[in-house]
Amino acid sequence: MIASIKKNDHVLKSIARLGEDSIDEIKRQKNPSVDIPLRNLSNVNFNPKKAIIEMGKAKQAREFFNIGMAKKYMQTFLVAEKCKDVLDEGKTVSIRDLYYMSKSTIPGTSENTFDEQDESDPIIEDLEVTADALREELGLYASNKGALVGEITIRDSGDTIDGRRMGSGGWSIPSICEPNFIQFKRCDAKFILLVEKDAVFRRLNEDKFWKSHKCILVTGGGQPPRGLRRLLYRMVNELKLPLYTYVDNDPWGYYIYSVVKQGSINLAYESVRMAVPHAKFIGLSSFDKERFKLPDNVTIKLLDEDIKRAKQLLEYPWFQKTPWQKEIRNMLKLGYKLEQEALSKRGISFVTEEYLPKKIKDKDFLD
Amino acid sequence: MIASIKKNDHVLKSIARLGEDSIDEIKRQKNPSVDIPLRNLSNVNFNPKKAIIEMGKAKQAREFFNIGMAKKYMQTFLVAEKCKDVLDEGKTVSIRDLYYMSKSTIPGTSENTFDEQDESDPIIEDLEVTADALREELGLYASNKGALVGEITIRDSGDTIDGRRMGSGGWSIPSICEPNFIQFKRCDAKFILLVEKDAVFRRLNEDKFWKSHKCILVTGGGQPPRGLRRLLYRMVNELKLPLYTYVDNDPWGYYIYSVVKQGSINLAYESVRMAVPHAKFIGLSSFDKERFKLPDNVTIKLLDEDIKRAKQLLEYPWFQKTPWQKEIRNMLKLGYKLEQEALSKRGISFVTEEYLPKKIKDKDFLD
Repeated sequence: MIASIKKNDHVLKSIARLGEDSIDEIKRQKNPSVDIPLRNLSNVNFNPKKAIIEMGKAKQAREFFNIGMAKKYMQTFLVAEKCKDVLDEGKTVSIRDLYYMSKSTIPGTSENTFDEQDESDPIIEDLEVTADALREELGLYASNKGALVGEITIRDSGDTIDGRRMGSGGWSIPSICEPNFIQFKRCDAKFILLVEKDAVFRRLNEDKFWKSHKCILVTGGGQPPRGLRRLLYRMVNELKLPLYTYVDNDPWGYYIYSVVKQGSINLAYESVRMAVPHAKFIGLSSFDKERFKLPDNVTIKLLDEDIKRAKQLLEYPWFQKTPWQKEIRNMLKLGYKLEQEALSKRGISFVTEEYLPKKIKDKDFLD
Repeated sequence: MIASIKKNDHVLKSIARLGEDSIDEIKRQKNPSVDIPLRNLSNVNFNPKKAIIEMGKAKQAREFFNIGMAKKYMQTFLVAEKCKDVLDEGKTVSIRDLYYMSKSTIPGTSENTFDEQDESDPIIEDLEVTADALREELGLYASNKGALVGEITIRDSGDTIDGRRMGSGGWSIPSICEPNFIQFKRCDAKFILLVEKDAVFRRLNEDKFWKSHKCILVTGGGQPPRGLRRLLYRMVNELKLPLYTYVDNDPWGYYIYSVVKQGSINLAYESVRMAVPHAKFIGLSSFDKERFKLPDNVTIKLLDEDIKRAKQLLEYPWFQKTPWQKEIRNMLKLGYKLEQEALSKRGISFVTEEYLPKKIKDKDFLD
């Protein structure tokens, strides 16, 4: 195996405790149960002090002697058992693998423990919140996506990755970026630039933007995957680097920024280990067309769903600051969106040589 | 810029010739036109000798004095001009960039040269076949996708990438893998293994399959993107390595294999520089459930669309060999498909330690 994934003591202990507590309840002739923190909207809040979306403290008992809960109770222990196996073997598996590993037919019946992955995935999330561990700490991964280049040297599973010598492709960001796999070595970067589109990442890498501006350049190819979000969190906190987010000017771009910054409602329990509340929005802004003299014909008319989404964003607590209200209202007023590639109209390397340098020099960010 | 992309003489000459021919026709008071090879189904054939899908020789004149063609004639030269600019600057741009770069409003009118990218993309394809150059040779790229690890050292834009030291992530495969960017250095691999799913790639990389079996491990995360296909073509031809394709057992998996092997109908003109007719199919096979003793509950019932698609595949000239007819008919008979992850049911590293080694040892391939 690549790395001896150190047995994560707090995770293994949490898993063991789940079983011990139930055994204890059985001995005391009680109904065995697991207390699962509630992941629904009623238990999610925006914490304005920490500036992240986080879970509340509400829990629900998942009981064995309860017709509506017995199957989920069993599934919880099946998933926990398989995660323990994975950690004990010092390996990692995908959440799809885990589904297959946990699936079996109950002897003497035609009943499966799991019929579809959409049954096992929520149980994984339950286990994450109950054991207070990210799925990556449980040895589970989703998909590899995203790339990195720039002024940092990284140790990945014992190999040394020099971000300054990664060619046009970059280092493919793994889905598990926990400290037992990934460590940071020499870093000469002054900031991190997260780029929405991989085509723009290529442009900036080809122009060696990361060298001229001493930074780390990353892309998630759209919404950053979990591995990249965790990597950003760790780089920002361990290396004390600012993070600038560069996205399309559309509601989806705003949303990408907001998930990186304060987490998402659906996965609120991750925020504490993934959200980067100090992340800044560098563009594209709805004021950029005027500011950077882009022609009319690079605009794209807002669709009804864009307008609806933008109006939703206006209501979110984390978009209440005046500059953000202006930003989003201006997009609605103008009635169009702008893509990162629209800057190419001003020249192939306009983004590298003028747009980003000016934004950074003027500290022209939204927060 | 990363690499001095050498001005590709044959490409620049082809582009120049397009213009010169039209000027010549104008001088001779003829209707200026460009002969564009036909990209439709009527001009696509399977060449059984070369075992690739290729284009025929039919062409169509695209004329300036022709109401139905004048706009496309103009668009062809706009795209050609921008490609020449990109090559002259020694840079590369995305096809989305090129769309914006070529888009303008014709003075005195409200008419745009291009309204949507779906107008410029086909013109790029026209230019590829007319100039006899892949879009990557024109300096254009689509998306970065896929990763590589294993027994090879690669030069990418002047940087040295050692596939043996790429950690759990790998080298992110760039979208342009032409010789002016990518060169192959020390190679100790005996074969290349292309893996459909990046989660399975991670499993094999974690188990260092590429080390124990001396190979190059790549994934495209589904259907391999153009960059990876071009890389495979070049590695197979320049390094004389066999290529094994490892995919899900479903019609989509068969199709991924067939595109890698003989190209696709839609992009038949690329086959000559991308198809790998010697590629072998290593699995999953519809006979594998029995052969590798997988339990019944890992199977997934074929959907109506799977059945329809499988029946189409049975008719394709490149699936006419008896073993392939047996393979696909067996899937239809059994009525189920199998995913790569289903092997995890036999153990986390069953794929690394038993499945693939046995297939390779027994030369249990389909061709």
